[in-house]
Formats: sequence, structure tokens, C-alpha cells
Amino acid sequence: MGSKLTVNSAWRATRTLWLLVLVSLSVCVCVCRASSPQEDSAMENIVTEKKAEESHRQDSADLLIFIMLLTLTILTIWLFKHRRFRFLHETGLAMIYGLLVGVVLRYGIHVPRDISNVTMSCHVNASPATLLVNVSGKFYEYTLKGEISANEVNEVQDNEMLRKVTFDPEVFFNILLPPIIFHAGYSLKRRHFFRNMGSILAYAFLGTVISCFVIGLLMYGCVTLMKKVGQLGGDFFFTDCLFFGAIVSATDPVTVLAIFNELQVDVDLYALLFGESVLNDAVAVVLSSSIVAYQPEGDNSHIFEVMAMLKSFGIFLGVFSGSFALGVATGVVTALVTKFTKLRDFQLLETALFFLMSWSTFLLAEACGFTGVVAVLFCGITQAHYTFNNLSPESQDRTKQLFELLNFLAENFIFSYMGLTLFTFQNHVFNPMFIVGAFLAVFLGRAANIYPLSFLLNLGRRNKIRSNFQHMMMFAGLRGAMTFALSIRDTATYARQMMFSTTLLVVFFTVWICGGGTTQMLSCQRIRVGVDSDQDNSMSIAEGSERRSTKQESAWLFRIWYNFDHNYLKPILTHSGPPLTATLPPCCGPLARFLTSPQAFENECQLKDDDSDLILTDGDISLTYGDITVSTDASGAHTSGGPGFAGGATSEDLDRELTYGDHELVMRGTRLVLPMDDSEPPFTDPHHRLRM
Amino acid sequence: MGSKLTVNSAWRATRTLWLLVLVSLSVCVCVCRASSPQEDSAMENIVTEKKAEESHRQDSADLLIFIMLLTLTILTIWLFKHRRFRFLHETGLAMIYGLLVGVVLRYGIHVPRDISNVTMSCHVNASPATLLVNVSGKFYEYTLKGEISANEVNEVQDNEMLRKVTFDPEVFFNILLPPIIFHAGYSLKRRHFFRNMGSILAYAFLGTVISCFVIGLLMYGCVTLMKKVGQLGGDFFFTDCLFFGAIVSATDPVTVLAIFNELQVDVDLYALLFGESVLNDAVAVVLSSSIVAYQPEGDNSHIFEVMAMLKSFGIFLGVFSGSFALGVATGVVTALVTKFTKLRDFQLLETALFFLMSWSTFLLAEACGFTGVVAVLFCGITQAHYTFNNLSPESQDRTKQLFELLNFLAENFIFSYMGLTLFTFQNHVFNPMFIVGAFLAVFLGRAANIYPLSFLLNLGRRNKIRSNFQHMMMFAGLRGAMTFALSIRDTATYARQMMFSTTLLVVFFTVWICGGGTTQMLSCQRIRVGVDSDQDNSMSIAEGSERRSTKQESAWLFRIWYNFDHNYLKPILTHSGPPLTATLPPCCGPLARFLTSPQAFENECQLKDDDSDLILTDGDISLTYGDITVSTDASGAHTSGGPGFAGGATSEDLDRELTYGDHELVMRGTRLVLPMDDSEPPFTDPHHRLRM
Repeated sequence: MGSKLTVNSAWRATRTLWLLVLVSLSVCVCVCRASSPQEDSAMENIVTEKKAEESHRQDSADLLIFIMLLTLTILTIWLFKHRRFRFLHETGLAMIYGLLVGVVLRYGIHVPRDISNVTMSCHVNASPATLLVNVSGKFYEYTLKGEISANEVNEVQDNEMLRKVTFDPEVFFNILLPPIIFHAGYSLKRRHFFRNMGSILAYAFLGTVISCFVIGLLMYGCVTLMKKVGQLGGDFFFTDCLFFGAIVSATDPVTVLAIFNELQVDVDLYALLFGESVLNDAVAVVLSSSIVAYQPEGDNSHIFEVMAMLKSFGIFLGVFSGSFALGVATGVVTALVTKFTKLRDFQLLETALFFLMSWSTFLLAEACGFTGVVAVLFCGITQAHYTFNNLSPESQDRTKQLFELLNFLAENFIFSYMGLTLFTFQNHVFNPMFIVGAFLAVFLGRAANIYPLSFLLNLGRRNKIRSNFQHMMMFAGLRGAMTFALSIRDTATYARQMMFSTTLLVVFFTVWICGGGTTQMLSCQRIRVGVDSDQDNSMSIAEGSERRSTKQESAWLFRIWYNFDHNYLKPILTHSGPPLTATLPPCCGPLARFLTSPQAFENECQLKDDDSDLILTDGDISLTYGDITVSTDASGAHTSGGPGFAGGATSEDLDRELTYGDHELVMRGTRLVLPMDDSEPPFTDPHHRLRM
Repeated sequence: MGSKLTVNSAWRATRTLWLLVLVSLSVCVCVCRASSPQEDSAMENIVTEKKAEESHRQDSADLLIFIMLLTLTILTIWLFKHRRFRFLHETGLAMIYGLLVGVVLRYGIHVPRDISNVTMSCHVNASPATLLVNVSGKFYEYTLKGEISANEVNEVQDNEMLRKVTFDPEVFFNILLPPIIFHAGYSLKRRHFFRNMGSILAYAFLGTVISCFVIGLLMYGCVTLMKKVGQLGGDFFFTDCLFFGAIVSATDPVTVLAIFNELQVDVDLYALLFGESVLNDAVAVVLSSSIVAYQPEGDNSHIFEVMAMLKSFGIFLGVFSGSFALGVATGVVTALVTKFTKLRDFQLLETALFFLMSWSTFLLAEACGFTGVVAVLFCGITQAHYTFNNLSPESQDRTKQLFELLNFLAENFIFSYMGLTLFTFQNHVFNPMFIVGAFLAVFLGRAANIYPLSFLLNLGRRNKIRSNFQHMMMFAGLRGAMTFALSIRDTATYARQMMFSTTLLVVFFTVWICGGGTTQMLSCQRIRVGVDSDQDNSMSIAEGSERRSTKQESAWLFRIWYNFDHNYLKPILTHSGPPLTATLPPCCGPLARFLTSPQAFENECQLKDDDSDLILTDGDISLTYGDITVSTDASGAHTSGGPGFAGGATSEDLDRELTYGDHELVMRGTRLVLPMDDSEPPFTDPHHRLRM
């Protein structure tokens, strides 16, 4: 009876779903069609108000198409999740629906030429931002939308419908990307991030630059070859190649990470991939804008010039550090405000303040000429690390859920728009040679990032990045929202159009093929998944002491950072950590007393550590944590206090923290079971183990 | 020690706050100033990209001003709440901050005339939506922004800064109002709303129309007088007067209701005021658009014509019912989707779907030519009544919190913009005579709405609307976001500009004076507040049976609706209610089985009533509820089942429901203690009671 009911309800659900799909698609199409005849009837009546109204109605209908697309995506995702179907991630699905609607819009609907929109040429000497047009005594105001190439002029008038569903590319940068990037920063699993900080920074900075230049050089070779063969229809300079390298170097393994989360794959691998992808987005944005800023003086603007290159390098450093500083500064201000006021009594105010302050980072960075997206990323990390601890539990939930929702909506919107734009964008340049070259270059660029860097990092790391991890990182180099947003930002020239079309294909391929093959790749590389937490528990005790020393030696960057953060930053910015009166030199006494919150004195002796407030998407870990905290306390772990705290206790604190990290690692059952070094006792399960 | 600490921290908080106020204001001003010299330097370099970048930076800076304003508002609100300072509501505060920034922008900052923005006149014969401008071979695209009056042409160029901070009025209708209105519908306290449905509908529909015509006629008198005296500087027709009547008839007692909530004022008064204000917004929107649509044929378009008036009336009915139907339809679709899928297992998907479906109502209505704001209101009510019951508890919280936040941000944004626009709007027409007339008309219009209707309603109501309630409703007729949005929508003509300026003053006055005086008015009218729930408990038992019969007689509209809703709609759309197999005639058996969810069969015998899922902003009431449910069960209240359910049980259900309503009324301690009729035992507390 029970099983029959389930089957029945699943079947009913499927039926309902497809009915809904049909209904909503037809509603979309009806609305689109419905507004066309009214547009026709409005022809004679050239009244501004009427036209504005029509245009508003059309805009609503267009936006409705996207909302319907997202709704369908959500329902289908649910069906996939319900049936544990893992080959297609929601983003891949959004792209497919986008593609379908794109095909319908392109070939299915023909909107008759709208005479009221006929464009007129008007010869003036400059292109002001605002234009007043005198129509028989009445003045109409026009605002500049942008330059369009001469060959587009006729097309513009031809397919009004396709133009209507085309968004201003800046929408992606100013509205859709910020919440995605902020969410990435806000949900960074900080413990694992900081533990692998050195490697992540190496992959993100050095790796992205390597990837950019390798792809740029390869593409330059490809383009030169094309020019010789006669396949190139316009200019394509070396800076264009480098620009292409920069934009396709931003990885976005959202599909892969979703599967990692579900299958509970090794947390270090997760941290490496996620940390890299979050930071290399920032690097790629700044890198691409520095390359665009490369402007040698004189007439021939495409020769190499040392000064111009140095200037570009300076811009890169300036913009990156400026955005970083702004992001961190806003985060710190928010932390201070939430610490020194009692806003936590009013959750709505607290959440609103948090949201507004985070948003203001973006605006402030953009207004100052820095990069808002980068600032937002570092603001997110700062908010998670400091402000989050000052928020009331309700606001912690609220902010997490709010940004989760915004991220989900924005991401799926971008991916469905990506699918749509393959058919609705009107200036595609698909060049087979360029495409093949680009795929090869992207592959080699990723390889040149991962393998050499991993080799170098392994020289310094005790906890080596094994070759199957490297293969997985290589495979997980998907391209996503950031690559798309960067490539659609400017599609004015031939080179940029070719890049855009090629980038679309790269994104489609990587999201569908690499994203869909993640589970296969994981089992092929014998990366153990979903380990039962009880199973590894006994082993972890044996490994404990040995592992601790391993970590203590290797994570020197983390150690320096941790000491500073724990002794000074945390106590200043949050209610946790040791009181500043203990960590600061005695001469700063009054200041220390002013900055230390009463709570810090109270919980001085408690084990209320910063990173136990980790933002985790799954709630069970904090529970596991609680147990460990208790057991560690029971086994005689010290609780220090008093004036000697600053010097002596922190290394033990760090130790304890790292031990917890390992405990968590093992208890989540997500660690790859591989010998840490040769002294480890052999493990005999041949199915789940790989020695290489 | 403890008190000293509190004082210290409060002082510290205040200090920090004002420091922040100064810092953020100076940041704002700096950013605004910082971008000006760069604008100057960009003069020579008339490259579109550069200009677009500059314009983007300026936009970011402008938006930043608003974000900072909101942040300041939040911090100050917190301070007020912290100190229980009730004379100024957050919206009033937002207006004050807006005013201050408006003064600074108007008189403090002078942006030098920007040559790159100099407007050029270009004589063509029509005003197309898109304009292509040929500048020495390059084509630039311009989009139509709107018509501007000839005398504005020079001003446009003069004060660029003020124009920059001016938003497109459609932003209010398409972005800011929908979440506010949806939230109003979604948080409508449904029990009290439905119980007072007749009165609320009368106030909202009849009352708004009365108010509109009274104000319109009075203003027409005023305008005629002005014309005679020679005070009128332009055309002002009777339709303009009526339009003014329509826009200032939309009440928005958000300030008053916030205080009601805090002080726990009588729930019936709350329901009357809230229900009226929610619905009359919808009525006012549709009414004003019908008045605009009044276009008699022929040349003289301002004479009275029956056909045109009938057409306007038809438009009113058509648009209102269309928007209503669309809103309800989307709500029903969402309810069905959430009922027949197992989306509740994935809260993120569920919340996202809910959000998207609710938004799509707005777009669908706008695309079909109906009024999105009205559709969104009824969608919100439907979602709260049906869909809410199908959501998982997490999603219930999430959606509530999400729309609460959106509402808070949008509302404060609108009010701070209102303050700002008093100084930054460049076409104000302040006419003292018109203003005095308008204040008088608004007062009389409200009186003509409340007092006669209350008299008529009291003829039918057993639970009379007492005269102190009537005075309070009269006093609480604040004007707010909707009035502002309607009046700023079109400021092209002299009449509209004068209306807009006057409306601003009406809003300021009512929000500050009436909103600030709410507490005084409550005590002046001796409306009892904050009654302890224990105190009234003993009395409620004595009153119980008597009150029940009172309700049974009066709420016939509610009764019809309740029976239909409980027997058919609830079981079809949600998991609660009796199974359809019991309520539908036997011939519909298969359909009934298909539509009834398994849960309905399971909880058939349980007392899981719809309205126990009330959306309440304060959590303690549901707790109170729980107790009552238990006690009522224990005292022998039946639980019915079987085929006889449909006919016999519902009236008892209704009975029980109404009893709960009364219980809650008393237990919240928010009932005004007045004799229901003469048979009530006298009550002897002279301070809290009034017999008239």
C-alpha cells in the first residue's frame, strides 16, 4: 500500500509537472503573441505615453519568459532530485530550457516590423549622453544606449523580438553577479580554506596568470595560422588573445561542487577547488580589465611596449588591492556596528543592515573605480569571518537563506540566459578553426595551471596533492557565469564576437560534459565518497597525534595568520576570542578595555572558538563538533586564562583547532583514505583505496 | 555594576552611531565630489565607453547615497526602539534623513556644467522609441526616455546632480511597490479580516469612491475660486481634481499599525484599518487609471459625457476584476504545484518557486494590460490562505522573512526618496491656496468615508463600530507610499506638478503629525492597550456563550464564504480540510479521490484547521492557541467524521472557530473593554474604560 501510494504520487507529480510545462510555455507564447497585434494598432497613434505603455507591457512579457523558464527549471530540478538523477545539474538544465526558448523565439515567432520603432538617422557632430529631440514643438528626451556597428543598423530593425529579450550586459555585472560572488565568499568553508590557503592562493593567482598567458599564446598561434589560411574576417590582436585567455581562465565548478557536497567527497579537495574558483574569478576580472587598459602610446596601438605593460601591471595591482581593501573595510565596519550596538534584538533591522552594508561595498567600489565584484567577494569572506559571529542566531539563518536564494536565482537566470543567447544573439561568429583552437588552448591552459603548480606545491606540502586529486581538479575546470559575463560585456568588434560565440560553446561543453561526468570521474579516479563516519572513527585516534605534527609543520602561513587573527582581530571585531586586555601590551590598557566586549571577559575561559561558528550548509557537522568539544575537554585539554594567555596559549589553541579539523575530516567520512606518509599502518580495503 | 555597564554601552552605542552618521555622510559627499573632477577631465575624450563608465560610476555613487540613507535610518530606528521612543516611526525618520540629504544636494553641492552632456536639438518629424544618431560614420543608439516640457529644457542642463538622483517614476510601480503590496496581502491577519470582511469591503470600495468624489468636488471648487482670484497658472480640469481625489484616497497607516502592534490594540480595529488600507490601495490605483482613461470623443475633451463615463466605469470594473482573477489564479496554481509535488523536501527550491510565481503574477498582469500591483495583492492573500499551508515550516519562515525584509527596504526607500524629492524635484508648484484646500478636502473626504459608512454598517453589525473607533480610523488615515507613487508617476503638466507638490506635503503632515500622535490619540480616545492576558481570562468564560451567538448572527457573509472555502477550496488546494470524497456529491467520486491528498484522509479526524496556520508576526499567539485547542477538546468539543461531515459539522466548525477567535481576542488582551450589549456585567475599572 505504502509503496503503491508513493509510485502513484510520483507518477501524478510527473504528469502534473509536464502539464505545467506545456501550460506555462503556451502562456508565454500567448502573451508574446498577444502583445503584437496591439503594437500594430498603436502604429497610427504616435503618443509617447501609449508607446511607453506598450514598451512596458512588452518588457513585462519578456521578463515573464525568464521567470517561467526559471520556474520550469525549478520543477524539473525537483523531479531530478526526487529521482536521484545526477547527470544534469540545475545550471545545465537551465541552459537547455534557455536553448529551447531561444529556438522558439528565433524561428517560431515572427513579430511584424514595428513602424513606430523605425529608427531615423540624424546627423550631428558628437554623441552626447542625453539628446533632446524637437518634434513639432514638443521635446522628447533620449538617453544614449551605446554604439552599434554599421552593419547592425539594418538588423536592429529587423528582429525586434530578439532584441527585446537581450539584456544590457551590465545587468550581469551590476545585478546578477554580485549576489553570486558574495554568496561564494560568505559560504566559503573557512577552516579548510585557511588550511589550504597557500595552495589556493597559488592556484588562483599564479595559476590563473599562467593559464591566461598559455591560452593567449596558443590562441595567438591559432589566429596567425587562420590569417594565413584566410579564415580570419577581421582584426585579432595579441591583446585580444590575452583577453580571451583571461576570461576563460575563470573557473566555476558549481556543478562539480554540488555533486561533491552530495557525495561527501574529500573536504581538502573541495576546499582547493572551491577556494580556487572563488578567487580566480576575482583575478580574471581584474586581469581582463588590466589587459583592456593596455594602451601603448602613439599611433600603432598594438605593438609591445614595456611602459604600457608596466602600467597594466600597476592597474592590476592597484585595482585588486583597492577592491580587496574596500571589501574588507566594509566588512570590518559592519562587524564593528553589529558589535557595539544591540541591533541583535531586532532581527529585521540587523538583516537589513547586513544586506545594505554588503551591497554598499559593491557600489562604493564601483563609484571609486575599483571592481565591485572583487570587493563583494572579500566583503563576503570578512562578513562570514567576523560579522557572522556578532549576529543573532535568527539573523545568521536569515542572511544565509537570503543570499542562498539570491545566489540560486541569479545563477539559474544567468545559465538560462546563456542558453537563450546562443540563438537570440544576432552577431555570432562561429569559426570552426578558432573553436577547435580554443578548446585545445583551454585544455592545455588548465593543465599548465594544475600540474606544474601541484608539483611545486607538493615540494612544500606534507599533505601532498595526489595525482588523482590533480586529475580531478583538471577535470573540474568548468567555465560558467563569470566567463559568460566577461565575454558578453563587450561584443562590438569582430574579435570580441568570435570570442563570445566560442566562449558560449566552451561553457556548454564543460558544464554538460565535465559537469555530467563528475560522478564517473570520481569513481574512475577512485576518490572515495560517502564514507560512513563511524567506520573511520577508530582509525582517527591512531592517526591523531601523528597527523597533528604533520599539520603543525606545514601550515606556517595559516599559523601566522591565525595568531594575529585570534589575538587581535577577533577580539576587536567580535564578541569572541580572548579579551584584548590579555593580548595587547599593557600600555594600551584603556583602549583594550574600550574595545573588548563584556562577553569576551565572560567567555574568556570557555572554548568558544571562532571557527566553530563555521557557516556550513549541512547542519549535522556542528553537532558532531559539539561532541568532540566535550570529549576533548574531558580528556584534560587545558582552558587557559590570565596574562600569560597571549604568548603561550595560542599555539596550543591552534593545535587544538587543527585536531578538531582532523576530527571533523574523519567524522564526516569524507577523507580520501590514503597513507599520509610511510609510517602509517597499512589499510586493506582494495575497493576504496589506491596506492600510487 | 550591571546598570553601569548598560548605561556605558548605551552611551558607547550612541557615540558610535553618530560617528558613523558623520563618516558615512562624508563618504557620500566625498564620492559625489570625487567623481566630478573626473567628469571634467573626460570632457575632451568623447569616447562612448568612457562616458558610459563615468555614468555608471555616477549611478553607483547616487545609489550609494540611498543605501547610506537607509543604513542611517536603520541605526537610528534601532536607537529609538532601544530607548522606546515612539513619536517617530521609521518611515517618518527615513523622510527626515531624505530631506536633509535633499537640502545638501540642492544647496551644498554644485556640479559644474557637464559639457559632454550638453543636449542638442535635432528636428525630426516623429518621436520613435529608438533613435540612431550618425556621428561621423559611427552609429549611436538612443532610447526614448519621455517627453519634457519646453520650459524644462534649459533647467535640464543646469542641475545635473539633481537629475541624477531622480529615479524613473516607474521604478516605484515596477520594483518597489510590488513587494510592499504583496507583503501586505501575505501578512493580512486572515481571521479578523474575514470576520470584518463586509465592513472592510464597504470602507475600501464605497469609502474610497466617496472620498475620491468628495475630494474631487471640493478641489474643483477650490480651483474655480483660484481661477477667479487669478492664482491658477495653468489648466486644471475636473478630471484632474478627481484624479487628485483618487490618489490621496489611498491610505497607508503603516506608522499607526506599527504602534498598534507594539501596544496590542484591539484586533478588530487593527483588522478594519489594515484591511481597509490594503484594499483601498488597490481601489485607488484602478480608480485613478480609470479617471485618466476618461476621454470624451470630439475636440473638447473636458466636457461631461455619459458614454465616456460609462466606459471609464467599465474599465474600472474590467481592470479590477481582471487583476483580481489573475492574482488569485497564480496563487491557486502555486498552491496546486506545492500540493501535488514533493517540493517541500527541498526548501530552497520551494522558496524560489514561491517567489518566482508571486513575481510572475505582477508581470503577467502588466503584460495583459491589468494592474500588477492589484494582482500581486490578491496573489498574496491567496498564497497566505492556501499555499502557505502546503509549504514546509522552513519555507514558511523563509518566505515570511524574505518578504518582510523586501517590504522593509522598499518602504524605507520610498519614504526617504520622498523626503529627498521635496528638494531635488525641479518642477514643484507650491500654491498656498491649493494646499490649504487640499488639506481641508483630504480631511473632509476621510470624514465622509468613515462616519456615514460606520453609521450604515452599525445598522447591520451587532459588534458595533464605536465612535472612538471611528475617530481613531479617521485619525489613522495617513497617506503614504501608494499616494506618492501615483502622484509622481506623471508630472508633465502644471496640474500634475501642483498635485505632486501638495501630495508630498499631505504625506509629510499625516506621517509626522498623525503618525506621531497615535499614542496620544489612543489614550485620548481611551482605547485600551496592552491588556494582560491573565486578567481577562476569567471574564472571557462568562462572556463566551453570549458572544458566540452574537457572532453567529452577524457574520453571514463570512459564513457563506467559510462553508464554501472549508468544504471545497481548502481540500482541493491544500493538504488540510475534510477529504473531498466526503464533501462532494458521490457522482464526483473519482475526481474527489484524485484531488484529495493522502494527508487529508489521515488528519480527517484531527483538529487541523486552516486558520490555526495564521500568519502572525508575533510568535506567542500560536502558543496561546495551542492551549486553547487542548482545553476545548478536553471540554468535550466534538471531532466529527464520516459522510455526514459536510452538512452538519461545518456550522459547528465555524462556531468553534469563532470561539477561538474570541478566545484569542481576549487572551491577547487587546480587546477594548466595552459592553457588547446591555446584558453584560458592569466592569469597574474607571481608568481603562469608557461608557458612552
